[in-house]
Amino acid sequence: MTDYHRFLSATGRQLTESAIRRMGTVVARDGDMVSFAPGYPDPALFPWNDLRAIAAELLTGKDPNALQYGPTRGHGPLLEAIVGILQTRDIDVNGDHLLITSGSQQGIDLIARVMIDPGDVVLVELPTFTGGIAAFKNMQAELVGVQQEADGISLEHLEEVWGRQRAAGKTVKLLYIIPNFQNPTGLLLGLAKRPKLLEWAERRDVLIVEDDPYGSLYFDDVAAAADTRPLRADDRNGRVLYLSTFSKTLAPGFRVGWMVAPPQLVERFETAKQSTDLTSGILDQHVVYEAVRRGVVDRLAPQLRALYRHKRDVMEQSIREHLGTRLTWAAPKGGFFIWASLPEGCTDTALLERALEHGLVFVIGSAFFVDGSGHEKIRLSFSAPSPERITEGVKRLAAALVAQAAAAR
Amino acid sequence: MTDYHRFLSATGRQLTESAIRRMGTVVARDGDMVSFAPGYPDPALFPWNDLRAIAAELLTGKDPNALQYGPTRGHGPLLEAIVGILQTRDIDVNGDHLLITSGSQQGIDLIARVMIDPGDVVLVELPTFTGGIAAFKNMQAELVGVQQEADGISLEHLEEVWGRQRAAGKTVKLLYIIPNFQNPTGLLLGLAKRPKLLEWAERRDVLIVEDDPYGSLYFDDVAAAADTRPLRADDRNGRVLYLSTFSKTLAPGFRVGWMVAPPQLVERFETAKQSTDLTSGILDQHVVYEAVRRGVVDRLAPQLRALYRHKRDVMEQSIREHLGTRLTWAAPKGGFFIWASLPEGCTDTALLERALEHGLVFVIGSAFFVDGSGHEKIRLSFSAPSPERITEGVKRLAAALVAQAAAAR
Repeated sequence: MTDYHRFLSATGRQLTESAIRRMGTVVARDGDMVSFAPGYPDPALFPWNDLRAIAAELLTGKDPNALQYGPTRGHGPLLEAIVGILQTRDIDVNGDHLLITSGSQQGIDLIARVMIDPGDVVLVELPTFTGGIAAFKNMQAELVGVQQEADGISLEHLEEVWGRQRAAGKTVKLLYIIPNFQNPTGLLLGLAKRPKLLEWAERRDVLIVEDDPYGSLYFDDVAAAADTRPLRADDRNGRVLYLSTFSKTLAPGFRVGWMVAPPQLVERFETAKQSTDLTSGILDQHVVYEAVRRGVVDRLAPQLRALYRHKRDVMEQSIREHLGTRLTWAAPKGGFFIWASLPEGCTDTALLERALEHGLVFVIGSAFFVDGSGHEKIRLSFSAPSPERITEGVKRLAAALVAQAAAAR
Repeated sequence: MTDYHRFLSATGRQLTESAIRRMGTVVARDGDMVSFAPGYPDPALFPWNDLRAIAAELLTGKDPNALQYGPTRGHGPLLEAIVGILQTRDIDVNGDHLLITSGSQQGIDLIARVMIDPGDVVLVELPTFTGGIAAFKNMQAELVGVQQEADGISLEHLEEVWGRQRAAGKTVKLLYIIPNFQNPTGLLLGLAKRPKLLEWAERRDVLIVEDDPYGSLYFDDVAAAADTRPLRADDRNGRVLYLSTFSKTLAPGFRVGWMVAPPQLVERFETAKQSTDLTSGILDQHVVYEAVRRGVVDRLAPQLRALYRHKRDVMEQSIREHLGTRLTWAAPKGGFFIWASLPEGCTDTALLERALEHGLVFVIGSAFFVDGSGHEKIRLSFSAPSPERITEGVKRLAAALVAQAAAAR
């Protein structure tokens, strides 16, 4: 048989697998498993009826473009609709600043390809989204972590880390950040910090990659839309590359996200996208456009906020009831996750092993850290399971903790 | 304003744009333009009614997975259905050999990423598909061309080119080839040559990337299914990475293609895909699966063959009528293209300029050559325009040729 090792590229040899995706596979194998692992939206709020009506109209054959190859940049009317969505977030751009991406994951990947040479430094939050880690690592970036505080990334540590990298002769190109209901911590970057972060990027000549999938999913008992103001809204010097998506506000199966960037960079990202998939799904883009145009996306937003807020309550109450004070966490103000600290002496990997035996899966904390730390943390997603399954999962987590403690003795 | 040059990677600085995509944009701007440029399928044969019925059933909400994130490898039932399709092509594999890709363009891109280091040599046909050129070039491959004969790639020239590269100390990893109704030439690789090519790859330790989007679109006056037997069907040693797609046999708007590779490589491609788009469109995969399961794809195939054969006839007859013997070409036995030689003294770029003035767009021949040649060739796609528009386009081509000859005098 052929030995393939010699055929692999440096990238091919070092590929980084997403821990989240691996956990997703575990669930798929076992029907009774409770999954707190992937950040899947709740399919109960996918607007099935609206989408069925939209698909029926689009598939009459009246518009042959609905199933044809389309422009790499994106379906024109959808680009216009996104300009409108961005205006509600105080981001004032036109179509020249936009590129439709196959999910915002593709946005991260295109940025990595167009901007990162092997050894270039990308600063990331400690902890951060595994899909971001993987995309940058697969372009052989050096990922360096910056600590977070209660109101998000630490500006002092950021400056310190940057200084150390520069002193070591490294090229620091990007800061990858998720300001709103961060993945995995659920943290919200403080409003006061946001302009300071922009100033810092300008002073230190670093570009900010602002990943914003969860911004509209704030919990209105503790946060408001104004708290989620994107960095890009106040970006006067083209320092921010902004990513967002319809995956959490409509449905992820469509793979429709977008990127906002300076026009001269959008052209490069577009050319890079050409050779990766030519174009994002065309019918998907037509459907998403119609869902925006008909107000489906707008009508859905408050329902989503209420639903996820309720699920957060169920998970928090359930943890308090079944686990007492053994887990601690900062109450999330939006998004999909509870980021929990484990009791002394309990590690994420040991607990996951027990949890799997008890029919529960979650993502280990260390998967989100680029510095090898985080073994005292776990990420629990409350977004997809029903309230009943959340409670059941927390009970299993309690049992797993007991088993783990017994085994550790 | 920010100067972005320092932020670009080596790849970002050298990005190669697809000439086909650029020409597609020209058409989009001008409604009356006749386009012989992109290899778009005819939307008249998109099975609108079937797809409408399928979408309506899928969007009842009965199966929440139809709009959820899905497995990176692909929707399970679709993978099984593709195993069946491959059996009809005498390719005997199971799901472990398969990865769903976002169009077969993504298959090429994943291969380039996982296998190509800067400076590695990829051998390609002279001429070849611009999307292949772009994907490999964007990973900084060195592309080296191999001549074609009436029955496809020249084995003698292949050996000679390989020897020269090896003598120069180069690493030759891949041969990228489109055996069936090649893009852009329309050539069909001779049956006798196919096993010899496999032997050659084994002897010289090169992997073959077999791109097969057009295999089922043979014209049955001059070819049969047996003539399109994939190289992969006789591959005993895992030498062939096989790519195909539903873009030409169902509709390209779905962005559903697939890759066949040895399981240990599929795992790497899957991991690479994770960080590029997580998963291909899920609703798309469900729809395509249903279209296969219900026999829509099978029923469509003979209609597609008849339609494109007819359009080939219309274009060939029209060229003979309006252009006499000024253009020459090898009659295609399948696929979407007429690959035409221009009269002495006429270049592809000069003619395109005139053609655009006359309301016609096509792809210049030189775009398909990695060695800077091909200026005496043009690619004319007959697949998308109606017979009337084909005739109109050929008339415009005749007028452009006259204008070009006058200008050249």
